[in-house]
Amino acid sequence: MHVTIKEAQQAIEAARAKAEAIGTQMCIAVVDSGGNLKAFYRMDDAWVGSIDIAQKKAKTALFFGMPTGQIGALSQPGGPLYGIEHSNDGLITFPGGIPIVDKDGVMSGAIGVSGSTVENDHAVAEAGARAIGETELPGHPWRT
Amino acid sequence: MHVTIKEAQQAIEAARAKAEAIGTQMCIAVVDSGGNLKAFYRMDDAWVGSIDIAQKKAKTALFFGMPTGQIGALSQPGGPLYGIEHSNDGLITFPGGIPIVDKDGVMSGAIGVSGSTVENDHAVAEAGARAIGETELPGHPWRT
Amino acid sequence: MHVTIKEAQQAIEAARAKAEAIGTQMCIAVVDSGGNLKAFYRMDDAWVGSIDIAQKKAKTALFFGMPTGQIGALSQPGGPLYGIEHSNDGLITFPGGIPIVDKDGVMSGAIGVSGSTVENDHAVAEAGARAIGETELPGHPWRT
Amino acid sequence: MHVTIKEAQQAIEAARAKAEAIGTQMCIAVVDSGGNLKAFYRMDDAWVGSIDIAQKKAKTALFFGMPTGQIGALSQPGGPLYGIEHSNDGLITFPGGIPIVDKDGVMSGAIGVSGSTVENDHAVAEAGARAIGETELPGHPWRT
Repeated sequence: MHVTIKEAQQAIEAARAKAEAIGTQMCIAVVDSGGNLKAFYRMDDAWVGSIDIAQKKAKTALFFGMPTGQIGALSQPGGPLYGIEHSNDGLITFPGGIPIVDKDGVMSGAIGVSGSTVENDHAVAEAGARAIGETELPGHPWRT
Repeated sequence: MHVTIKEAQQAIEAARAKAEAIGTQMCIAVVDSGGNLKAFYRMDDAWVGSIDIAQKKAKTALFFGMPTGQIGALSQPGGPLYGIEHSNDGLITFPGGIPIVDKDGVMSGAIGVSGSTVENDHAVAEAGARAIGETELPGHPWRT
Repeated sequence: MHVTIKEAQQAIEAARAKAEAIGTQMCIAVVDSGGNLKAFYRMDDAWVGSIDIAQKKAKTALFFGMPTGQIGALSQPGGPLYGIEHSNDGLITFPGGIPIVDKDGVMSGAIGVSGSTVENDHAVAEAGARAIGETELPGHPWRT
Repeated sequence: MHVTIKEAQQAIEAARAKAEAIGTQMCIAVVDSGGNLKAFYRMDDAWVGSIDIAQKKAKTALFFGMPTGQIGALSQPGGPLYGIEHSNDGLITFPGGIPIVDKDGVMSGAIGVSGSTVENDHAVAEAGARAIGETELPGHPWRT
């Protein structure tokens, strides 16, 4: 039910390879299904400010079982989740956090990546997540 | 690699002179390349609220290697980094924080200034940073 | 009523000279009579952990108008102030923080020093405080 | 000057091997010379509460350039550093955190381990640190 350290390391290795392939320096965090840090990897020359953001993206994706960018679309001014970032000691709701879903459709953890554009962050997180599972949970009211 | 205290004092002195020249009362903070406070200077009659803002501006510039105002342009509602201020125990993303880059192109620290308009804050920070180095890091996706 | 930046710089310079004379690397913080940071100076190679401790010592001395070590004597297990360190976002109650008292007997600020033994920290703080004022306030119930 | 990710991974691998050899489940954290997280590894079945402790041990060792247990010996009731744990957003001052010192005698980072007895935590941290450097800084008043 929880992502194992072996899986977390596989996800980080896949994310690292993707980050290198696109010429970026990333912070990569993996949390378990309780939202607690399982593994973390900061590439040399990655932004110091990304250490916290990568972890918050992983937690945010885990907390709500959806990519962080989907929450951000709902948390804009006037949106239904405006200000949700104030909860849980701070969320990050732009792209780069993705749930990790096992073969039974259960969320075993999440990955968060920070260090470049949000498009690159998301691509690297996806490479990591897909190395060990799926990224889509069964339907959820906010996700349809 | 870290800004020295001698450099930090030179940056503060240059920033102070600029602040005085334009008739403002500023808080001036210098952090090292780890984002940790190296030196701080509060002019008489500066806003008490600027003590924290100057430090957070310096940290924000250091955390991402760019002027704080550039991050603020991306963190507006609907922007790619909306809500980034919730990370790292609170960022300040309007102008007044600037990286300090040594002659080898390495970021050795950052300076943050608060106490007047954001234009004045930025001008004073720039005077401080330029006294001991450059303010531009090598290219990065968000900065081109 | 508040320590001026000119005085704060004089205190820091005297503290720095003392620190150098005894071969130590110190963080030196000066707060005003509101407990808000006025100036800060970190000597090269000072402990990173002393940045926060120097500031907390200055605040603690200011908050209660007495040297930090006097509070620490009262905050031991079984003592009347046991656990006071949990207040005010964290106090430091061992020596190294000293009030700064002006010629009218009014507390204008405080200085905090961290980076060596508590004896050295206290000696350096005292050198700083005495450069611009006294360190003793009129009598106080807890101090007699 | 900062520990590299390659070195951090070597330290974690050596620590993991030691932890496995003595039949324990550990959280292992490596921070750079600014006290910022470089890498983190949680073995399966390690205590959730150790995630934070391992990181705080690494930071504490880095903040003061000495093994965490040395600070704890000084922070006991009646000791010179009683209550130091209230600084820096919380220190951990029992064994398990060790500085990492490079061949030039410069502290490049620190490692923190939590998950078993403090003796085991220290032994695992030492195995990690020694895989990439020394653990002793040049002399300091508190360390002689």
